[in-house]
Amino acid sequence: MIQFLDQNFSQLNHFLTKDTYSRIFILVDENTHENCLPILLGNLETSTEIEILEIEAGEEMKNIQTAIHLWEILTEMHADRKALIVNLGGGVVTDMGGFVAATYKRGISFINVPTTLLAMCDASIGGKTGIDLMHYKNMVGTFSLPEHIFVYPSFLSTLPSDQLLSGFAEMLKHGLIADKNHWNSLTQISDLDAENIIPHVKRSMEIKQNVVDKDFHEENIRKTLNFGHTIGHSLESLFLEDNTPILHGEAVALGMICETYLSKLENLISEEQSETIIKGIRSKFSTIDISKYSNEAIVAILVNDKKNSNSNINFSLLHCIGAAVFNHQCQTENIVKSLNYYRNLCNN
Amino acid sequence: MIQFLDQNFSQLNHFLTKDTYSRIFILVDENTHENCLPILLGNLETSTEIEILEIEAGEEMKNIQTAIHLWEILTEMHADRKALIVNLGGGVVTDMGGFVAATYKRGISFINVPTTLLAMCDASIGGKTGIDLMHYKNMVGTFSLPEHIFVYPSFLSTLPSDQLLSGFAEMLKHGLIADKNHWNSLTQISDLDAENIIPHVKRSMEIKQNVVDKDFHEENIRKTLNFGHTIGHSLESLFLEDNTPILHGEAVALGMICETYLSKLENLISEEQSETIIKGIRSKFSTIDISKYSNEAIVAILVNDKKNSNSNINFSLLHCIGAAVFNHQCQTENIVKSLNYYRNLCNN
Repeated sequence: MIQFLDQNFSQLNHFLTKDTYSRIFILVDENTHENCLPILLGNLETSTEIEILEIEAGEEMKNIQTAIHLWEILTEMHADRKALIVNLGGGVVTDMGGFVAATYKRGISFINVPTTLLAMCDASIGGKTGIDLMHYKNMVGTFSLPEHIFVYPSFLSTLPSDQLLSGFAEMLKHGLIADKNHWNSLTQISDLDAENIIPHVKRSMEIKQNVVDKDFHEENIRKTLNFGHTIGHSLESLFLEDNTPILHGEAVALGMICETYLSKLENLISEEQSETIIKGIRSKFSTIDISKYSNEAIVAILVNDKKNSNSNINFSLLHCIGAAVFNHQCQTENIVKSLNYYRNLCNN
Repeated sequence: MIQFLDQNFSQLNHFLTKDTYSRIFILVDENTHENCLPILLGNLETSTEIEILEIEAGEEMKNIQTAIHLWEILTEMHADRKALIVNLGGGVVTDMGGFVAATYKRGISFINVPTTLLAMCDASIGGKTGIDLMHYKNMVGTFSLPEHIFVYPSFLSTLPSDQLLSGFAEMLKHGLIADKNHWNSLTQISDLDAENIIPHVKRSMEIKQNVVDKDFHEENIRKTLNFGHTIGHSLESLFLEDNTPILHGEAVALGMICETYLSKLENLISEEQSETIIKGIRSKFSTIDISKYSNEAIVAILVNDKKNSNSNINFSLLHCIGAAVFNHQCQTENIVKSLNYYRNLCNN
């Protein structure tokens, strides 16, 4: 299901010969329109008609108005049930394009061609599609698998360094929840550039795919992928609401530090491992000033997190580097302590 | 999966004890709020908190704005993934509530308690959820099964006679595509009132459920359920666009007459059977004046029907009473002839 593309995109061209799609709609944002679409179109060999759909870049565009706009364009262009949507972009494009495909005429086929490190290692895999609603991330969406995921690592060379860093947070997470060797390899990278990261992308994708294969609907083990995302999402939402968005990876790095410390407070992980992890994350990510948000404001958002049920706050936490637990309910007191721990890091 | 409710709704109460839902959201429209909700609430035995969500009645409310409204209310009320939506109403409520449930937080559970004949025999079964977009019916939606369907036939006693007639069209269709005995029983009913129809509801639901079980995603045999709906939907859309909506069942009856005649033109069915069917439908349904719509306008909508692929117009037609074919492509000439045949019926 995941395939790496050679220079001629021959795997993708082969895929397109296997099914008879009535038309191909390539969804891009301004950035991938400029940087990635010419490469894709230059290599595509198909007699099927191709249309380009463009949306504005940015998480704030991942809303229902953009979805309505795309549904309407598809309707006006008479896209039928045998149309294919190709999501060429980062997580916003794959989440949005997947949701529109999953719901247009009750579902048409789509494939993901992730162009960012974050989309390659995380968003493009696992069939989570969705849009944000009222400042809540991914509040509306579906579980719908792409027909295929095609990865062209050279797209990463066009990526700004902060975008590489953003995806790198998810790679670290994969190491932390499932594979100590992966974590060790990643933390040993000195310069975080595309060339040094690319050799590790495949392993990171495998870890995510393995977890998703075991539990597609996130009823048990898939929840471990939420490590770092409970507190991370809460802060990401608050910054977004203030129109001062932070990168998803920055939020996850922040969340992983808090939730590692929380794992220690809950007696799940040793102090030594906790310190090693936090040191490893901090060697790649600067701390973020969260002083404008009170602990109460952060906890209030946790309560409405998608992953909760029956009003309990569920966390995915760590046993050690390479092993995670899920459905762990924490006392608010310890959540607050972990936030205060992070605040102190910022001050030092 | 389909259960008929006794006077105490004990089957529903038993269902609610089997799973631990965090909250129950009952979706109603003004009509079911007044006529059906008191009966449901009077019989419900549960300690789970209950909330009522109300939407305005009518097909024109089955749009994305209503869906957004419901998603936002659920978000504001902190509905979690273990919440249950109970769709208490006709097809608009079950289609809309199913779509909102299928997409809120990537999917929460829902059950259907259909209150109209149309919803009992058709909309509530088979997992088709959806909303209309730009005057196209069900352009956006999902295939998502309810956890259960609970039928309380006495709700039909509160229904106006035109609403009964509307659902009766789908029952006739079930007979025509799959069960000659069902067709015969239905056409022998002299007075179409609730009392006379109720004994046949179970069989009609079974026919639909059997077809859906064989082909959930409508890749083959499920398409036979679209008999009467290709031309029927086209006219229904045109009347809706003019703000002079006709009942779904009236549209289907109209469509079934045209498509039976089309089956004869395409040499699929004998002239004798065709006449018997058309006579049977006309004995229950008056013809509708479609003179304000040209054949070109009607055919133009057929081209964008969800059921088409690669720009061909696909029909589900009849071999005889009780047997249907699908993916049958017709020449426009014959489609036009069948529309003209119907126009002539109106004039006589």
